[in-house]
Amino acid sequence: MEVMQVLHMNGGMGETSYANNSLLQRMVILMTKPITEAAITALFSAADTAFHASLAIADLGCSSGPNTLFAMSEIITIMINLCEATNSKLPEFQVFLNDLPGNDFNTIFSSLLPRFQEKLSEQMKGKYGASATLSCFFNGVPGSFYGRLFARESLHLIYSSYSLHWLSQIPRGLEGNKGNIYIARSSPPEVIRAYYEQFQRDFSTFLECRGQELVMGGFMVLTLMGRRSDDPSSKECCSIWELLAVALNQMVSEGLIEEEKLDSFNIPNYTPSPKEVRLEVQKQGSFSINCLEVSEVDWSKIGSDFDPNVVSEDGGYHLSRCIRAVAEPLVVHHFGEEIIDEVFKRCKAQLAARMSTENPTFVNVVISLKKVA
Amino acid sequence: MEVMQVLHMNGGMGETSYANNSLLQRMVILMTKPITEAAITALFSAADTAFHASLAIADLGCSSGPNTLFAMSEIITIMINLCEATNSKLPEFQVFLNDLPGNDFNTIFSSLLPRFQEKLSEQMKGKYGASATLSCFFNGVPGSFYGRLFARESLHLIYSSYSLHWLSQIPRGLEGNKGNIYIARSSPPEVIRAYYEQFQRDFSTFLECRGQELVMGGFMVLTLMGRRSDDPSSKECCSIWELLAVALNQMVSEGLIEEEKLDSFNIPNYTPSPKEVRLEVQKQGSFSINCLEVSEVDWSKIGSDFDPNVVSEDGGYHLSRCIRAVAEPLVVHHFGEEIIDEVFKRCKAQLAARMSTENPTFVNVVISLKKVA
Repeated sequence: MEVMQVLHMNGGMGETSYANNSLLQRMVILMTKPITEAAITALFSAADTAFHASLAIADLGCSSGPNTLFAMSEIITIMINLCEATNSKLPEFQVFLNDLPGNDFNTIFSSLLPRFQEKLSEQMKGKYGASATLSCFFNGVPGSFYGRLFARESLHLIYSSYSLHWLSQIPRGLEGNKGNIYIARSSPPEVIRAYYEQFQRDFSTFLECRGQELVMGGFMVLTLMGRRSDDPSSKECCSIWELLAVALNQMVSEGLIEEEKLDSFNIPNYTPSPKEVRLEVQKQGSFSINCLEVSEVDWSKIGSDFDPNVVSEDGGYHLSRCIRAVAEPLVVHHFGEEIIDEVFKRCKAQLAARMSTENPTFVNVVISLKKVA
Repeated sequence: MEVMQVLHMNGGMGETSYANNSLLQRMVILMTKPITEAAITALFSAADTAFHASLAIADLGCSSGPNTLFAMSEIITIMINLCEATNSKLPEFQVFLNDLPGNDFNTIFSSLLPRFQEKLSEQMKGKYGASATLSCFFNGVPGSFYGRLFARESLHLIYSSYSLHWLSQIPRGLEGNKGNIYIARSSPPEVIRAYYEQFQRDFSTFLECRGQELVMGGFMVLTLMGRRSDDPSSKECCSIWELLAVALNQMVSEGLIEEEKLDSFNIPNYTPSPKEVRLEVQKQGSFSINCLEVSEVDWSKIGSDFDPNVVSEDGGYHLSRCIRAVAEPLVVHHFGEEIIDEVFKRCKAQLAARMSTENPTFVNVVISLKKVA
């Protein structure tokens, strides 16, 4: 499977679309806002980056939905407030929205962007009066972030949320991972090694490319789905794919899916520990680490209207839809269209069962980096 | 009518698509190649632009079809040859593909671009050996070029072919243009004035914006459909819309279209003379004129496999399809879907009749500009 061709969030605006099922990703963007804010403030204050007239920011893995411009909107607002507080002239913003070429850029350009620009313009007029304008230029950048995407030293700030745990390809050497679809307790050591080495290759390539594209003193804020534990087969990061695997295994035992088909299916994902992230950054050498944090999202709080104190009535409902929106293209590509409703019906039941006895969480690793070499 | 929402070439890859009916536009790109080449050579030689590591080029009105990357491909090849001839290091290329937000960017990103990158990579390997690579970064830029699109002084070369004769809006004050759909012999003076003034406003806004976006010493090569004559109602530029108007008038007289409907339909187009183009450039003041030329394409030679010496068997066939690919969205928006086949059937008959007795041509105005202020 070519991950680059297959991996994309569920398109359109329907019930199972990513656009309508990306509350988890939105919560994560909100949770990491203080770290983003600190990075922008440091960038703004630093003499050595000196963006002066124009500030170039990129969102890597922007997808196509309500979150697409959400992070960029937060960043622009933070910058406007900083300029206001220090009585500085607003820079021109260059915003680069990157995702794989199969992402629905048409929807971003013809529907999301016009609404966003209108909102931005109202915000400016509300703040500075009717004649105020903000120069903000948008670009769509198709391509894998495991390769160069931008010209040398052309960016001031790179942002990526919930994208970098996707690998560039399914690791080789997973033949022994029978019955599993990701790293699991029963995965043999060579499977775990194959996954980890793929992550190392991918993440170091990513750092190398971004190191070339950022100006000296530029910042990068990355959020990955990860884990606290040193053990890559830890429940905290593998549960979600294990539940999908249980659903698929049930269907194998009922003759609805061929066993060989399941054995050859693996998710191109890696959920690193903060230690593993730090190690790659240090090995690569272009960046200093400003901040490396771990945070958590309760499964049960997803979909609770962004208020982390409210537990939703049926948390499994939102989470199962969220997983479907993310994983459906991969599952359909491998198993075909016919089984998809059944797979996710069973997956939802598994989720509900797990959540009735435990309080599982997603673990996020957030790292803020400054280019220093 | 909001031109920005309605104007786009016929989408998809079908029989009436722009992708399959853009031979005229391709011929024009080829014909103007010497002027483009001269501009790039001047840019390459000039000390004052000094693009060094990275060369940023933009195509304004790139559309979505075989021509989308054709001009950019020519420009990159010219630059590669210049570097080879002078033994210079190749720059990194930043390519910005602009069109209105309704343009099919998904097709560019997921289909045209991968093929183009493959071709480019083969070309490099053929020239410099198996390990040779070219750094070329692509961006889609949605928006009207009658407004700012790029950051200040961020581009080295701007290119636009067969886009700038489209106006930002249908001029106001065309009520007297009954029976016509563009400037015609029978148009009252205030209609001609309204069209010309809209062109002046639009083209000077365009120059103002591009003047801000180009680096000092940067170049701009623009090709517009135009005319030689000082008379805006001259046959050389109005014929094509007159033939469509004849078809529509026939249908009014047969009761297939309401007269009021036709009276309120006008094409948002202006085909300027070289003198009118020069005047706006001089008034605006950011650019010096390197070259201002007029060229012609015989209607009968469109579709003749790009060989201007071969007259196609049925020139009217290709031209009528070309006009449909360009004008259909405007016609459908105003008159509805139902009449569209009949309109273009009649338009084709008009074309064939005209071409059997005359040898009409399209007139192109090409201007090469350097930013000097």
